[in-house]
Amino acid sequence: MTVVSVGNQELFDTVSAVPGVEAVLFDGLGTPPRPDIEVFIGPYDARPHAFDDLGELHSLKAVQLVTAGYEHVLPTLPAGVVLANGAGIHNTSTSELALALTLAAQRGIPDFVRAAQTGSWTHDGDYPSLADRNVLILGYGEIGRAVARRVLAFEASVTPVASRARAGDDLVDIVHGTDELPALLPGHDVVIVVVPLTDSTRGMVDAQFLAALPDNALIVNVARGKVVQTDALLVECRSGRLRAALDVTDPEPLPADHPLWQLPNVLISPHVGGASSAFWPRARRFVDEQLRRYVAGDGLQHVVSS
Amino acid sequence: MTVVSVGNQELFDTVSAVPGVEAVLFDGLGTPPRPDIEVFIGPYDARPHAFDDLGELHSLKAVQLVTAGYEHVLPTLPAGVVLANGAGIHNTSTSELALALTLAAQRGIPDFVRAAQTGSWTHDGDYPSLADRNVLILGYGEIGRAVARRVLAFEASVTPVASRARAGDDLVDIVHGTDELPALLPGHDVVIVVVPLTDSTRGMVDAQFLAALPDNALIVNVARGKVVQTDALLVECRSGRLRAALDVTDPEPLPADHPLWQLPNVLISPHVGGASSAFWPRARRFVDEQLRRYVAGDGLQHVVSS
Repeated sequence: MTVVSVGNQELFDTVSAVPGVEAVLFDGLGTPPRPDIEVFIGPYDARPHAFDDLGELHSLKAVQLVTAGYEHVLPTLPAGVVLANGAGIHNTSTSELALALTLAAQRGIPDFVRAAQTGSWTHDGDYPSLADRNVLILGYGEIGRAVARRVLAFEASVTPVASRARAGDDLVDIVHGTDELPALLPGHDVVIVVVPLTDSTRGMVDAQFLAALPDNALIVNVARGKVVQTDALLVECRSGRLRAALDVTDPEPLPADHPLWQLPNVLISPHVGGASSAFWPRARRFVDEQLRRYVAGDGLQHVVSS
Repeated sequence: MTVVSVGNQELFDTVSAVPGVEAVLFDGLGTPPRPDIEVFIGPYDARPHAFDDLGELHSLKAVQLVTAGYEHVLPTLPAGVVLANGAGIHNTSTSELALALTLAAQRGIPDFVRAAQTGSWTHDGDYPSLADRNVLILGYGEIGRAVARRVLAFEASVTPVASRARAGDDLVDIVHGTDELPALLPGHDVVIVVVPLTDSTRGMVDAQFLAALPDNALIVNVARGKVVQTDALLVECRSGRLRAALDVTDPEPLPADHPLWQLPNVLISPHVGGASSAFWPRARRFVDEQLRRYVAGDGLQHVVSS
């Protein structure tokens, strides 16, 4: 039997049902319930220090996350232990929130929520539709593709940008490389950021990036706060030249007195890209498939470090 | 030459450019600029009484609207004059707003806008995704199909309901009839209302309709306010059992002291379904096509009364 620890009650029955697996509930804090845990399924909504003591699990061979982000685990991942992220689980929920933020910002929903507080039936001219917009998707992995599929349903055009240019797929003719950004940005009304946080994406949405966008462009970030330089974004939104819709910020949580909160052209959600009812059904299907592969000796998919 | 009056400056050049047409600007108020207007293109955002004096245009043969709704013109339409509505122009903008309202309500955007006012980075558990929801679309004409196409991109299921059952299309297997509503409603989490206002749709979303929906269901109305019985909806939303997202209300505008404004589970936009940047490009293409048909003797499409 392969001993698998699972960080959330919501996944326990799924893990227990995999033939050849013995499941134990463990969120990574305190004494491990067994000394022979071989696969550690990281808790969703992990508490601080949940990954600190992986080195004390002497039988550990693999860490499986149910999050797309994995940078927080790397510093304490023991040598020789495979790390796989939860690629795909969040595509649905995160891409959906990206569209919710984009459509809300384009069509004036925040203005209408505030107007309701004084019972004001009013709107200030026509809002920009998502239709007819040129949307740049920064990061074109699985979440980027899920965003593209949804954006295309709205009669908007999509320009995908990845670290390097490559051929397109069933949704787009071509994937552009980040080296083309200076030429691409001036022609785009909406930028949706879905890149993972790495050394090369940290702070990439900087003052120069933002300055290249046309007036009234919208920046949507559902990736990681540190991909965007907050101070540079603040300057552009404060002046009214650009707009933003952010599910992630830097710092995060955003302090109560941060000036971003009070700008009418900045919409903020509290990092809930993955936190919807779409999550657990997809997490269960994913973990089930990963563990069956592991037990069969086929190895985990979506390995990000080994 | 066919003399065509046009109610908006934004369409004047388009109308003037149609061979065989002489365009005059006229919003329906005051003395007509010419006695021989044959086609009256109703103004968008028409002022009250814009259609009152159609009977004084003695050469009038056709009224072309750029709105989907046409019930306000019927009482003063002279006998023998053809009325065509702006079917199709608003599909894009209105279906987009329907999704903006639906996604915002599902994913908590109004809560986050209010939380921003006190700088609160907080969310109350997981919000329901649109993914995995069963969405009933009440009204399955062109706007209903545009809504369906967008909803399907979000991994939700669609149940279209029209006045009578019929075969499906490229998006859905079957179109249900309104007589099936009592059996259908209990299985649907989201209802998007896009029916025109007619004698048979007036007040059709009544207390019995609402009572048949499951707890926490969302009613989205981008059609006409009078399709929904406001008092019945108010009862269900006040108790917290149902939620609503309304672009149209009854009465409209909603008075400042109306209790709907203050309910946290009711999102209200001020009848802006068609009012986005998507409107004029599509209105121009539509009017151009209609007038070319008319001048060629092929007759107008989308005739709703003749």
